Amino acid sequence: MTTNHRPGHLNLNAFLMSSGHHEASWRLPQSGPDATGHDIAHLRRLAQIAERGRFDSIFFADGPGLQGDVGRRPSGTLDPLIVLTAIAAATERIGLVATASTTYNSPYNLARRFASIDHVSAGRAGWNVVTTAGPDIARNFGLDAQPAHAERYARAAEFLEVAFKLWDSWEDDAVVADKAAGIWADSAKIHPPEHVGRYFSVAGALNVPRSPQGRPLIVQAGSSQDGKDLAARYAEAVFTAHQTLGDAQEFYRDLKARTVAAGRDADGVRILPGIVPVIGSTEAEARAQERELDELILPQYAQRQLARTLRLAPEDLPLDRELPADLPDEDEIEGAKSRYTLVVRLARRERLTVRELIGRLGGGRGHRTFAGTPEQVADTLQEWYDAGAADGFNIMPAALPSGLEQFTEHVLPVLRERGLFRTEYEGTTLREHYGLARPANRYATAEQVGA
Amino acid sequence: MTTNHRPGHLNLNAFLMSSGHHEASWRLPQSGPDATGHDIAHLRRLAQIAERGRFDSIFFADGPGLQGDVGRRPSGTLDPLIVLTAIAAATERIGLVATASTTYNSPYNLARRFASIDHVSAGRAGWNVVTTAGPDIARNFGLDAQPAHAERYARAAEFLEVAFKLWDSWEDDAVVADKAAGIWADSAKIHPPEHVGRYFSVAGALNVPRSPQGRPLIVQAGSSQDGKDLAARYAEAVFTAHQTLGDAQEFYRDLKARTVAAGRDADGVRILPGIVPVIGSTEAEARAQERELDELILPQYAQRQLARTLRLAPEDLPLDRELPADLPDEDEIEGAKSRYTLVVRLARRERLTVRELIGRLGGGRGHRTFAGTPEQVADTLQEWYDAGAADGFNIMPAALPSGLEQFTEHVLPVLRERGLFRTEYEGTTLREHYGLARPANRYATAEQVGA
Ligand SMILES: Cc1cc2nc3c(=O)[nH]c(=O)nc-3n(C[C@H](O)[C@H](O)[C@H](O)COP(=O)(O)O)c2cc1C
Ligand SMILES: Cc1cc2nc3c(=O)[nH]c(=O)nc-3n(C[C@H](O)[C@H](O)[C@H](O)COP(=O)(O)O)c2cc1C
Repeated sequence: MTTNHRPGHLNLNAFLMSSGHHEASWRLPQSGPDATGHDIAHLRRLAQIAERGRFDSIFFADGPGLQGDVGRRPSGTLDPLIVLTAIAAATERIGLVATASTTYNSPYNLARRFASIDHVSAGRAGWNVVTTAGPDIARNFGLDAQPAHAERYARAAEFLEVAFKLWDSWEDDAVVADKAAGIWADSAKIHPPEHVGRYFSVAGALNVPRSPQGRPLIVQAGSSQDGKDLAARYAEAVFTAHQTLGDAQEFYRDLKARTVAAGRDADGVRILPGIVPVIGSTEAEARAQERELDELILPQYAQRQLARTLRLAPEDLPLDRELPADLPDEDEIEGAKSRYTLVVRLARRERLTVRELIGRLGGGRGHRTFAGTPEQVADTLQEWYDAGAADGFNIMPAALPSGLEQFTEHVLPVLRERGLFRTEYEGTTLREHYGLARPANRYATAEQVGA
Repeated sequence: MTTNHRPGHLNLNAFLMSSGHHEASWRLPQSGPDATGHDIAHLRRLAQIAERGRFDSIFFADGPGLQGDVGRRPSGTLDPLIVLTAIAAATERIGLVATASTTYNSPYNLARRFASIDHVSAGRAGWNVVTTAGPDIARNFGLDAQPAHAERYARAAEFLEVAFKLWDSWEDDAVVADKAAGIWADSAKIHPPEHVGRYFSVAGALNVPRSPQGRPLIVQAGSSQDGKDLAARYAEAVFTAHQTLGDAQEFYRDLKARTVAAGRDADGVRILPGIVPVIGSTEAEARAQERELDELILPQYAQRQLARTLRLAPEDLPLDRELPADLPDEDEIEGAKSRYTLVVRLARRERLTVRELIGRLGGGRGHRTFAGTPEQVADTLQEWYDAGAADGFNIMPAALPSGLEQFTEHVLPVLRERGLFRTEYEGTTLREHYGLARPANRYATAEQVGA
């Protein structure tokens, strides 16, 4: 009952974002004014395309603040849990994953919201657990500075412990609804956490009965050392960004080993690197599309953003020079550590100028961009899958909806022909799509669990 | 543009709750096991009945904790903002009001969620602003005791100030989407609150553009002195509980006077007392229904609950005696002050035994229960409306869905015949249903507002 099975094909998540992952996608002639993160009809349509493709899940990133230049690209996104709920009503099977921060939420309220979405969607909810980098966001929550990186991850671990207790606080058979006796639920089957810890004290049981999946699927997306340790202990799927097969293989081996060391089954965590596919009917056409997008980037926006990431002034980054020689170590970064390292390594390895680096980051903010034919895209996915770099992929179309439609219509059939992807959903819950068992309730007796 | 108009008929809100407001309604033969606060199909069906009736709005009460005996009645309710979002997708016009606490939320996240629901529902969101009484709930959020009553209301007022700033932080025309120039939004039209106050510091602009209604409709439901002052300053609709016409008239006059004293238009706040209608085709049939429900109450649950409200032990409340003579004053109560006073006054005025009091509270927890024919129900609503006790009503069916169906099919036609209620929705937003203007953005110039 509690063993996990690699589903025999790769897992695909559709990472949805306004007009697409390329920062200039909104400027394409075919991009409509509705292609934003606050137009629910647009977001619903994207989810329906992904469901038609039989993707395992859709996903929304999030941070509780308005970040970056609002001139640069569509900004301002609805609360992703509200978006998931609206999409749940317009889809049947696809998994629904949203990001929420452990630094700027309280466990009781957030655990309840995810349990609620799991109920409303009949078992399709997933939570991308993030610790949220950035001083600007801290200032929206009464703090002068962000809590230190290690502190944020320690809080995240305790947050999850509390959430797991809350999700188990009702046994599956707590509701008896005995009209004759006048007993609606059996209070002996409801277990208040009475949690007292370093960051949280949470006394009472959740005010929502246990949800169809027991708890939402736990997703994690930070790749620092602390991030990987959190994933090893709790995550069931991991989103990650790598530019090369070697880096991805190293990450994959490392995380699976940490998961086993944490006492879990290596198959209990699915690793999904991101890829920004730019698809053409010929390779030349794909490259032309990529060029069209890159030429729409206004370098001053990206230069300001890169300066923020590297903690420099924009003047320190002349467009046609390489990055300055002396940059801080990852150790000194209190924000998003792994993203910082990825950007610096990429620039150094390929000796990119600032302008070239900006071009490379414009597509996927550090994720790998790949331009090619549907066969070439399928080839690279298969290569990474076969080479032990991935259990599946986080598909990040450069332009939306067009890029998702192209992937669904042209790449998925190739993957299916090769036996690498499902034709139909076999299960109904997100856990079933990922081949993961429903977790037993910690309070249930062995008999009830069917062991 | 900014004046409010009494809509020329009464406003009706459907207060939805699991199997109904009567605590024993779940034990009725016709009540199904799905009639809970965590079955979205049930809740959706209720909203659709209310929309068929052209109610102004539906409403869900809430507290972030599992309270009372789970044996007593269906417990465990989904997060009401998730419920509203799911219902938004299944309805077209009806207003959607949910309760959320200013004591156990942060303004940035909550303002964003309501703005998100307003977007998703095309302008139908309302927020019932409550300060949340009870030490048990405090213990779910790291506190040993609830903050003092006055403290909770001071925080609520600042919470609303911050939320209003956040909802105005994008001017209505901030998005320019100028593809040629590469400018998506005009940063000069985005105004970070930079709020620094006693309870909150919130620096940045909301990460959601201004919503269809500008901000959600603000509803308030606490009737203590502090509660009324908060309502006078901010509320656009008020839910309240009164047992007699005289009490309701006094409350109505008092709150309208406070609203004018706060510099607002008296019509800018709609006052909606609650009523639990029990409807029969004859008066005798209605009374028989009421009796059937009351006989299903198990007194030990209610006795324990009443003891908690009065801060006594259950042994201090023998079922066939009146309340003890010496009870604390409202001043000493740090929980729900106005509910406490209402219960004590009712028992004293009518010299009720504990058993009788329990019967009276079983239906509507202090709200007025009225059993009668459709004409009699319409008569009492009209009487209160004409006598200046109400701008409309909070309809709290004893049993659901049946009581809402009966009200819709039998009482609403009588009100319509008398010109007291709409036949069709005239507007599309919740504000339009209540006859309230869309608030101008504080940063917009007079020219833009059309003044
Ligand atoms: C595909 C993907 C999506 C992510 N989404 C978010 C997000 O929505 N919000 C967020 O704060 N961090 C997100 N992250 C994580 C950040 O990129 C960053 O790594 C993290 O905030 C800090 O993690 P680290 O310091 O462990 O690297 C995402 C990462 C990946 C790979
Ligand atoms: C119709 C109605 C609905 C209410 N719903 C809630 C609710 O959902 N949550 C809550 O904490 N208080 C709610 N209240 C308010 C409480 O009854 C109580 O009055 C309040 O928590 C404290 O207010 P007070 O001390 O100003 O009376 C509601 C009141 C009324 C009249």
